[in-house]
Amino acid sequence: MAARKLLVDIHTHVYLPRYASFLRSRSVVPRIFSRTNDAGKTEERLLILDDEPSAGRPIGSQYWDRDEKLKFMDKHDIDVSIVSSANPWLDFLPASTAQQLAGELNEDLENYCSTGPSVQDDTLKRLYGFGLLPLVPGVSPSTLVETVKQISALSHLKGVIIGTRGIGKGLDDDALEPVWAAIAEAGLVIFLHPHYGVDGKAWGEKDNGHVLPLALGFPFETTIATTRLILSGVFDRHPNLRLLLAHSGGALPQLSSRLASCIDHDPIVASRLSHDARYYLGKLYFDAVAYGSEELGFVSDVIGRSSAYSARPSSAKASKNVEGDKRKIGSARMLFGTDHPFFPPLSETEKWKSVVENLEAIDGVNGWAETEKEGVRGDNALKLFGLRV
Amino acid sequence: MAARKLLVDIHTHVYLPRYASFLRSRSVVPRIFSRTNDAGKTEERLLILDDEPSAGRPIGSQYWDRDEKLKFMDKHDIDVSIVSSANPWLDFLPASTAQQLAGELNEDLENYCSTGPSVQDDTLKRLYGFGLLPLVPGVSPSTLVETVKQISALSHLKGVIIGTRGIGKGLDDDALEPVWAAIAEAGLVIFLHPHYGVDGKAWGEKDNGHVLPLALGFPFETTIATTRLILSGVFDRHPNLRLLLAHSGGALPQLSSRLASCIDHDPIVASRLSHDARYYLGKLYFDAVAYGSEELGFVSDVIGRSSAYSARPSSAKASKNVEGDKRKIGSARMLFGTDHPFFPPLSETEKWKSVVENLEAIDGVNGWAETEKEGVRGDNALKLFGLRV
Repeated sequence: MAARKLLVDIHTHVYLPRYASFLRSRSVVPRIFSRTNDAGKTEERLLILDDEPSAGRPIGSQYWDRDEKLKFMDKHDIDVSIVSSANPWLDFLPASTAQQLAGELNEDLENYCSTGPSVQDDTLKRLYGFGLLPLVPGVSPSTLVETVKQISALSHLKGVIIGTRGIGKGLDDDALEPVWAAIAEAGLVIFLHPHYGVDGKAWGEKDNGHVLPLALGFPFETTIATTRLILSGVFDRHPNLRLLLAHSGGALPQLSSRLASCIDHDPIVASRLSHDARYYLGKLYFDAVAYGSEELGFVSDVIGRSSAYSARPSSAKASKNVEGDKRKIGSARMLFGTDHPFFPPLSETEKWKSVVENLEAIDGVNGWAETEKEGVRGDNALKLFGLRV
Repeated sequence: MAARKLLVDIHTHVYLPRYASFLRSRSVVPRIFSRTNDAGKTEERLLILDDEPSAGRPIGSQYWDRDEKLKFMDKHDIDVSIVSSANPWLDFLPASTAQQLAGELNEDLENYCSTGPSVQDDTLKRLYGFGLLPLVPGVSPSTLVETVKQISALSHLKGVIIGTRGIGKGLDDDALEPVWAAIAEAGLVIFLHPHYGVDGKAWGEKDNGHVLPLALGFPFETTIATTRLILSGVFDRHPNLRLLLAHSGGALPQLSSRLASCIDHDPIVASRLSHDARYYLGKLYFDAVAYGSEELGFVSDVIGRSSAYSARPSSAKASKNVEGDKRKIGSARMLFGTDHPFFPPLSETEKWKSVVENLEAIDGVNGWAETEKEGVRGDNALKLFGLRV
């Protein structure tokens, strides 16, 4: 009999207690501070963005308490979560602090997962994790490689979550080559997640709250970082690297044919790449955190078409033919996520709207049969993270 | 008998001779300068971006000579072009110069179109145009309204091309209200086109030529400007405004459900809008300059689904039901374009690859029958610009 189909959340965050304590000790962003609210009660607030209104946002035990994570999972029938530290990770720290805290937080997360519950009637645990690398200026690549080894030795950590700054020059920095090699060799999954967006001047003078940096800045940042990785040849040199993109790859799917065209028109850039830009999108993984069925179907199309673009840039035109149904093929690289505990409901409701919307989006994709939907909801994650053979 | 189906190019640029002369008179970007090339010949070069390599790019008569435009059209079987001045328009000029030049260039473009040829066996001309507004700091809204009136009195000008800076504070500037009202009342189409991208620091230190600012920066800029327009309520206040987005709306289609979700989670922003963010995409027009069939199909889906999202943000969930086939419905707001004379072929070939790719992309969209393809290739433009009833 086939195993019960599991719902696996691969985009779900935590501020581990050690990290939260550290944020409380700080007087500049990122920080957690206490204030007395209108009702006369003490409450904690989180400030993580440089240009955020000074009141920050509410923060509570859902960010660090494992029981709260499990309660959230139970409420939404999520069987397994691959938990990752939330931004801004260690980005803001001096090298020595980042290095020490990475090691400690990786141990903490291993403990968070390994001492947690298992899926009922199963050997599978309910919690796995993405570790942290001390990706800050001044940290040597060999230190990063050491941390990759630490993480790969922690059996419940299945990958690393990273931002886009690398050790100061972004992810297309040649100095990171040994890090990519080590991650690929260890079989860890890289979860690429934004934090900085783009220059805030782009948002203008009107007060639109967090809408523009979150809705546009975050996806733009992921798109830029991934494109720079493609252009730097990282995926040509490390074909086994497994990169999972937050928020369904941001704007990369929609801009990938334009990207290919711009590369085609620049012979120097084109000559450095082994494939048409669209080919590389078929080597990536995308969370299904896009809130719409049309978006998910499109990302699936873009992944599924990639095999038609294996030719070098500017070579005779691609075959355009994909064997099989590209919308179904592409689904194998897409994975359900919630972004918990961000995007909380505005009122006390049974389920979180952000979660419900992402599940409805999966369910509503034209051209996905139940098999593809089950894949996106859990089977693809079990396979990608080696949780079930 | 049905009229022969026409191919109409709505994204095709010109530097009118008066504008080119003006660029030649300048010593700072944007400018046209002469140099002696390796073969000992004098050639002209164009510099339009602040961070562009100092050699700029080749420029020649294809940018200003109407015969070259018509030759290009003939080569690609384009019957009608709606020609627009290329970026950066008048953006860099002091108010008085911008105002004077706008008036003159609008007359020039009217002349360029009206004295040109007609479509064979037809009363239709082969050239129509988008006029220019002196959108620079220090120009008064009433001056802009005057220029709108000038343009609407020039019978071959069917719209205006604008950048994203407005009169210094972007397009969500309240001061522009009378301008939107005047444009809507005149029935002109606004062609929104990028020039600035986003802060160049985002591209990192590697030399990737123009790839990142063109492939990502341009679409990001369009996405930001349009989103700010939506958030400012311009489309609620001016429901008859017709805005055509360059490059298929950049990343807006892929990020629109995320945008809706972010708005839903911000009650103050949500309370200002009459509809879910996705609704507004169905009020926009999109060029079909995306270089891929999957992209075009997706944009069509996003336009087509919009009627399901007419409810206010955060209200009970949208019906999700669209009467009819949303992929077909959406095609009615998409229009073929070439971006000529940019993206020229690298070698002397019969046809421009960028044009061929955009035509192939239209032809390859799953779910579009010949009627939808004919619409995108020309019928939608004839209708939008009132060229054929």
